[in-house]
Amino acid sequence: MDLKTLYSPVARDLADVETNFKELADFWKQDFPELHDMLRHILVGGKILRPALTFLSGRCIDGKTGRILNMATANELMHIATLVHDDAIDRADTRRGRVTVNKLWGTEKAILLGDFLFARAGEFAASTDSLRVTKLFSQTLGIIAVGELRQARDLFSSNQNMEGYLQRISGKTAALLKMSTESGAILAGGTEAQIQILADYGYNLGLAFQIIDDILDFIGTEEELGKPVGSDLRQGTVTLPALLLIQRHPEGNPVSEFLAGHDREKNIALAIEQIKSDGLIDESYREAIKYSDKAIALLEELPKTPCREGLKTLASYLVRRRN
Amino acid sequence: MDLKTLYSPVARDLADVETNFKELADFWKQDFPELHDMLRHILVGGKILRPALTFLSGRCIDGKTGRILNMATANELMHIATLVHDDAIDRADTRRGRVTVNKLWGTEKAILLGDFLFARAGEFAASTDSLRVTKLFSQTLGIIAVGELRQARDLFSSNQNMEGYLQRISGKTAALLKMSTESGAILAGGTEAQIQILADYGYNLGLAFQIIDDILDFIGTEEELGKPVGSDLRQGTVTLPALLLIQRHPEGNPVSEFLAGHDREKNIALAIEQIKSDGLIDESYREAIKYSDKAIALLEELPKTPCREGLKTLASYLVRRRN
Repeated sequence: MDLKTLYSPVARDLADVETNFKELADFWKQDFPELHDMLRHILVGGKILRPALTFLSGRCIDGKTGRILNMATANELMHIATLVHDDAIDRADTRRGRVTVNKLWGTEKAILLGDFLFARAGEFAASTDSLRVTKLFSQTLGIIAVGELRQARDLFSSNQNMEGYLQRISGKTAALLKMSTESGAILAGGTEAQIQILADYGYNLGLAFQIIDDILDFIGTEEELGKPVGSDLRQGTVTLPALLLIQRHPEGNPVSEFLAGHDREKNIALAIEQIKSDGLIDESYREAIKYSDKAIALLEELPKTPCREGLKTLASYLVRRRN
Repeated sequence: MDLKTLYSPVARDLADVETNFKELADFWKQDFPELHDMLRHILVGGKILRPALTFLSGRCIDGKTGRILNMATANELMHIATLVHDDAIDRADTRRGRVTVNKLWGTEKAILLGDFLFARAGEFAASTDSLRVTKLFSQTLGIIAVGELRQARDLFSSNQNMEGYLQRISGKTAALLKMSTESGAILAGGTEAQIQILADYGYNLGLAFQIIDDILDFIGTEEELGKPVGSDLRQGTVTLPALLLIQRHPEGNPVSEFLAGHDREKNIALAIEQIKSDGLIDESYREAIKYSDKAIALLEELPKTPCREGLKTLASYLVRRRN
């Protein structure tokens, strides 16, 4: 099973998103070739998970996907915009094995390209002619920014707890997956109950998805990750596996030592090792699966359709992925 | 005559914008004090020109300003967000004599705060319940970002012309002033003809306003400007006075010498001096006044009201300002 198979019920819809992206870039080919090149660089690849969620959610309810295409495009553009800003903030050189915008064109242009992408995302959202999803769009962007600000605030702090971790990842990841499913349900004309189910599915899936991301940062290989192992911790971000280690050994542990600036290379290697040997990867997985199971269970109340089954399989797949 | 007097027909409306700003910041006081502090820092001071334009434009047409308040707030928030990102990009330490967000909290948080402010601006725009102004909002954000990207592309280039200069300033400044007046007219229920007049007024005013900004950068004192004289050129941005000097002496001039990296301190001083002695400040003023006169003339077709007269006087005032 791979993503392409999972996306097959909405493959044609996803091709339309790619057409939108191509047109978005090609518009600037003559007038502003550098912007065209930046857009071409950033608008390819990726899981296109968010548009897939929007279409699958919409098709759980109804077959009308005309206006959903605009919102699916908006959801992916918002995601890409946040990645461009994240990489500029982290001064990252690569993302999933590809060179970042800030590395190729500089931090300044990366900030402005991100702003441009937010703007185009907002235009696509508004072009659904639905005030409800347009409002949801701006609210979600605000939630994401606050989530990222909380993460920036908590950098290199050992004084963290589960509540704060969940608050951060619900902001930086779950909010956008929730918007992706919720907006599909709204635009397909779902009932309030259906919209709520799909919004909750997206939110729980988002928590599971981010926990897996945080696990993979410790157990993946540099080749799978496209970046060094333990990158989050290296940058001072305490994710679930590291948090569990702090909680298990409050009297002293390599994560806290690393964060305090003591012998960083040694302690990060020790942290990665001890997180694995203490069984904290398994514990983190159990946490992720708790949320993905909840997401799957929520869907039981929707009519059985290929798209509903697709969303279930997708949730199982995403907690098993390796990159 | 000062801005306070000019704003008097809409003084109460502007106080409501400040109340919105206060509530926006206070919301985070308990939960996220650092965000509260950043918002308090950035949401005070300034000309609040954009909300004033929105209210005055709305009142040129009608007295209904309920939903206009939301858009006036959105317009100013978008302006502030762009300033926060601009300062992060320019690594500026001060803006109008106040310390910048990036200087106080770092570039990373400045990027995220800007994103947060764009999001809140978008929420205020969508809360007008007008899809038309909500779409205008996203389009304008896109135009601004492209204007800023063009400016970044053209840094330290001597190969520039009037057309490119106008294209840049229409993107980075005129588009937002146009949105400010146009959105007021739309929300007040203006006719298409009235909306077009006020949109054109805002656009021409925006061009004049930016040309004056660019002039003041050469003729202001460091005290008036809150930054060193010639800052734009120092950062590699060729504005109208510098462009005119290049065009007058294509065979060789201190601006091109500076941009080429030759003896920068000497050439920037020479450039400032020669721009003045060659009469290029006056020529730039004539250009600005051409646009402000056009803005004023456009208003003749609207009914004579105190707000219309206010917009006329404002245009005259803004080309005479010293900071």
